[in-house]
Amino acid sequence: LDYQHVQVPFEITLWIMLASLAKIGFHLYNRLPSVVPESCLLIFVGLIMGGIIYGLNDKSPPVMDSDIFFLYLLPPIVLDAGYFMPSRPFFENIGTILLYAVVGTIWNVFGIGFSLYGICQVKAFHLQDVSLLHNLLFGSLIAAVDPVAVLAVFEEIHVNEKLHILVFGESLLNDAVTVVLYKLFRSFCEMPTITSVDVFAGVGKFFVVGLGGVLVGLTFGMTSAFTTRFTKDIRVIEPLFVFLYSYLSYLTAEMFHLSGIVAIIACAMGMKRYVEANISLKSHTTVKYFMKMWSSVSDTLIFIFLGVSTIGENHEWNWPYICFTVIFCLIWRALGVLVLTFFVNRFHVNTITSKDQFIIAYGGLRGAICFSLVFLLPDFHRKKLFIAATTVVILFTVFVQGMTIRPLVDLLAVKRKRESAPTVGEQIHIRFLDHLLAGIEDISGHWGQYYWKDKLEYFNSKYLQKILLREYDQPKSSIVLLYEKLERKHAIELAEAGQLGHAPSHPSLLRSGFLCSNNNRTVITDKKLEDTLNPDVLENIQEILSRNLYRIRRTGPAYNRHTLPGETEPMEHAKEILILRHKNL
Amino acid sequence: LDYQHVQVPFEITLWIMLASLAKIGFHLYNRLPSVVPESCLLIFVGLIMGGIIYGLNDKSPPVMDSDIFFLYLLPPIVLDAGYFMPSRPFFENIGTILLYAVVGTIWNVFGIGFSLYGICQVKAFHLQDVSLLHNLLFGSLIAAVDPVAVLAVFEEIHVNEKLHILVFGESLLNDAVTVVLYKLFRSFCEMPTITSVDVFAGVGKFFVVGLGGVLVGLTFGMTSAFTTRFTKDIRVIEPLFVFLYSYLSYLTAEMFHLSGIVAIIACAMGMKRYVEANISLKSHTTVKYFMKMWSSVSDTLIFIFLGVSTIGENHEWNWPYICFTVIFCLIWRALGVLVLTFFVNRFHVNTITSKDQFIIAYGGLRGAICFSLVFLLPDFHRKKLFIAATTVVILFTVFVQGMTIRPLVDLLAVKRKRESAPTVGEQIHIRFLDHLLAGIEDISGHWGQYYWKDKLEYFNSKYLQKILLREYDQPKSSIVLLYEKLERKHAIELAEAGQLGHAPSHPSLLRSGFLCSNNNRTVITDKKLEDTLNPDVLENIQEILSRNLYRIRRTGPAYNRHTLPGETEPMEHAKEILILRHKNL
Repeated sequence: LDYQHVQVPFEITLWIMLASLAKIGFHLYNRLPSVVPESCLLIFVGLIMGGIIYGLNDKSPPVMDSDIFFLYLLPPIVLDAGYFMPSRPFFENIGTILLYAVVGTIWNVFGIGFSLYGICQVKAFHLQDVSLLHNLLFGSLIAAVDPVAVLAVFEEIHVNEKLHILVFGESLLNDAVTVVLYKLFRSFCEMPTITSVDVFAGVGKFFVVGLGGVLVGLTFGMTSAFTTRFTKDIRVIEPLFVFLYSYLSYLTAEMFHLSGIVAIIACAMGMKRYVEANISLKSHTTVKYFMKMWSSVSDTLIFIFLGVSTIGENHEWNWPYICFTVIFCLIWRALGVLVLTFFVNRFHVNTITSKDQFIIAYGGLRGAICFSLVFLLPDFHRKKLFIAATTVVILFTVFVQGMTIRPLVDLLAVKRKRESAPTVGEQIHIRFLDHLLAGIEDISGHWGQYYWKDKLEYFNSKYLQKILLREYDQPKSSIVLLYEKLERKHAIELAEAGQLGHAPSHPSLLRSGFLCSNNNRTVITDKKLEDTLNPDVLENIQEILSRNLYRIRRTGPAYNRHTLPGETEPMEHAKEILILRHKNL
Repeated sequence: LDYQHVQVPFEITLWIMLASLAKIGFHLYNRLPSVVPESCLLIFVGLIMGGIIYGLNDKSPPVMDSDIFFLYLLPPIVLDAGYFMPSRPFFENIGTILLYAVVGTIWNVFGIGFSLYGICQVKAFHLQDVSLLHNLLFGSLIAAVDPVAVLAVFEEIHVNEKLHILVFGESLLNDAVTVVLYKLFRSFCEMPTITSVDVFAGVGKFFVVGLGGVLVGLTFGMTSAFTTRFTKDIRVIEPLFVFLYSYLSYLTAEMFHLSGIVAIIACAMGMKRYVEANISLKSHTTVKYFMKMWSSVSDTLIFIFLGVSTIGENHEWNWPYICFTVIFCLIWRALGVLVLTFFVNRFHVNTITSKDQFIIAYGGLRGAICFSLVFLLPDFHRKKLFIAATTVVILFTVFVQGMTIRPLVDLLAVKRKRESAPTVGEQIHIRFLDHLLAGIEDISGHWGQYYWKDKLEYFNSKYLQKILLREYDQPKSSIVLLYEKLERKHAIELAEAGQLGHAPSHPSLLRSGFLCSNNNRTVITDKKLEDTLNPDVLENIQEILSRNLYRIRRTGPAYNRHTLPGETEPMEHAKEILILRHKNL
């Protein structure tokens, strides 16, 4: 027996296997996941395993290595989050998200830090030796909402899209703030004196870390898209580039002390549309599937490790400090959301309701990022207290908040995600309105959201697509692609029902029962599409599309009231708009 | 800059990236890969890189770590090979393959070992200090044909299926022999005296290593199939189990000093048909795609590392020894193939032609396995000589033999692989003949290949399928599945050509050119099927199938000449066959 030789890969494989089997186990009992979030169950499994290890070895089980967490477990989850991020709601609410992520996190850090410092002054608690700086450092790691925990809970409760993107977007983008504040306070802890220059440098650093991350991410994303231009003869390695470049963007950002999470999200969102156009359908399925699989496994491992690491003798149980930490985390987050939303609602027509505000405040779950950061703290005599407080906060938020948020959402009747995908008609109208609003903003000289979106789209089609896409000379409108997809789907359904026009003697086969088997449905690839479009709706859409699609394109340019159909040239339109705009300015 | 922190994953990612980019680079020039095998180009890239590293650092570049090779790079390639192994030709030729793999390899090991020992006795060559045991040890590592190198070359030259499976199967299964002989001679080298008991123990060990590997592989394979029974609610982690269990089988086998390669092949071949039936279509695409991708990257990395490791000061250039090694490798392989084929041809109707024999002998490429084994040798004063000889043999076989084998195949007009997949008619006939032969063997009391195949199939459908498959109550004949697939494909083609029956106004869309775009073809999933079945053939098949499929089934039981159609029961047939057989016995 030569265990030493294969130990590392063997144990890694066994951990992943355990995680996967645990996942299967939960889903065998259909009731369990609908009551308790999977993250709680996994932590519970981890706690039991940690207990067993502790019992057998009589020493603390190994804690989750921060390096393993940040280098191997976190990137797949963030990549998945970034790649499948719904870009429209994200960019529509980017202002609010940034406000929550930046101002909100800073508010929480200083709120929690200063109020815990206040608690430390109470003599009865024996905490006078914890300095303000240490409290602020602790605040910087405990304040950040965790994307992994948020995703695990919010994916199951199906709140409306805007609410989801607000909480989830905040949890992703606050990484830049957390990184800066954590590193700032940690270096302050080791400095003899702190000058005002250092503080200003810290503020400047925030922009560097955040924007630097975006820049690194976009650079790698564009390179990735450019690389997939040349993979036509060697389809089989296409999916690799998506993973390699995004991982490289994360590592590069981490290497330069920038925000890796921001980098990988920028990379994934940047490359997505170009890569999808370049790679084959099968490669794309593999990319999507493998991303989901990988993030799912990472996620499972993180929660199990979290449970395992909780057991042991790393903790100092000073209950006043721990309890006040939990209370302050709740209070400052609630206050922060209330104050910030007040300002946000003053500038928006589509306001955030008080129910939504409650869910945003209540959904501020903490997770493995805090946990890894607290173990990365420099050694000092109260580190075990911080570890204990962090553990309790995480368990409290994941178990108590995570398990009660679903009943609360039901009770408050928070607006849910619409179950059906938007119809083709809706999509056309949304796009039409976008163009209209861009035109209005252009004419009125108000350079708003739609104006910039239009400019970006122009830049994209004029330059980026030509460089990054393989077959630029054959651009296809997404509506035509959708139409083709529907046609194919329809055809498959017909074939499966045996109603295809000119295969001559289907009825005999139908009678013999070959084609009417029950598991026909398994082959249909796009489940979501199938649910929303039953054959009748589908036929209607096809009819409308086939009647109107071409005509709209042909008669489109004739909307100008000064000319007869077919006379105007696009150039003249552009001129006219320009003249109108100049007058307005 | 914090490079230390991210060094390990960063460098791994960069190496993989380099390998992938090199692959893309070669395929940009269409002519290059058709003349030079990719493996040669990759070794060349490695040589250049090694030269650069050597030039810059003025010390030998790092050699490929044997642990990395055996634990991380080799398994994906072998898994891919086992999973996509055509099982029919493999099992039809299993006797011949085993003969080549076991007897042939032993023949080569002792042939090369003893004749090199003879060379060592020539005083002019200054090699008297190399003992017989060391020569045999060297023979045991240099004799084995390398599956990675064989696959890289034979995948490009498209020889007929039997020839391919003979060379490739041998290269895979000889691992058990190589492992045993290599470890045996290595332990002999360290023993003071060798008794005859040790030698017999070595012979017995071969069976343990080979059959143990098969057992470990099948155990994990069946467990994997059983696990995928329960993944219906959590499709996204299905592909994971295929990879996890096969990797575990490899590691477990290695741990117990069994043949990991044999184990992973047994695992992959064993689980394939059950896993495929259990997992979803998308999961299956992901499994196939990712396996190909992974093995392709591993393959690339191995050849690049091989090139890099060649450069340096690890070599002792004793030219007589090196040249004779190359010559003996060629001669003993040729002799072995001639002798063994002589015996094989006496017992087979379908003989191996002399052209085929030449290609089998010439296709005995050496590769990274030899290279890794030579570095694993215990340190002794002539190790650098062995390293040099191994390097030269590998480069000679990969470059000279690998580059000339394609012209030779053309020149000799070796029978090629048929370009088209077998038609449905052929498949039906093959299956029919199998049943017929099984029946004949059963009646005549000759328990041959078909008899055992039939028994295995019975055992499979009676027990294994019930345990391992999720939906056993709905078995579908593969011919019905194929028919459904063709129907779907046909429907998609119709939809894309815009000829689907009842979408009303397609002609207008057709005219506008929306549906006739050139890249329609990219969406068709099964490229191979598409090439072989043009719409006409397809329509014919559908017609024939839909007319005859059910009728054959219905009238099938009526072949018995003693009864009228519909009267016989299957039990009576079985009885009759039994009676006939008893008479014969």
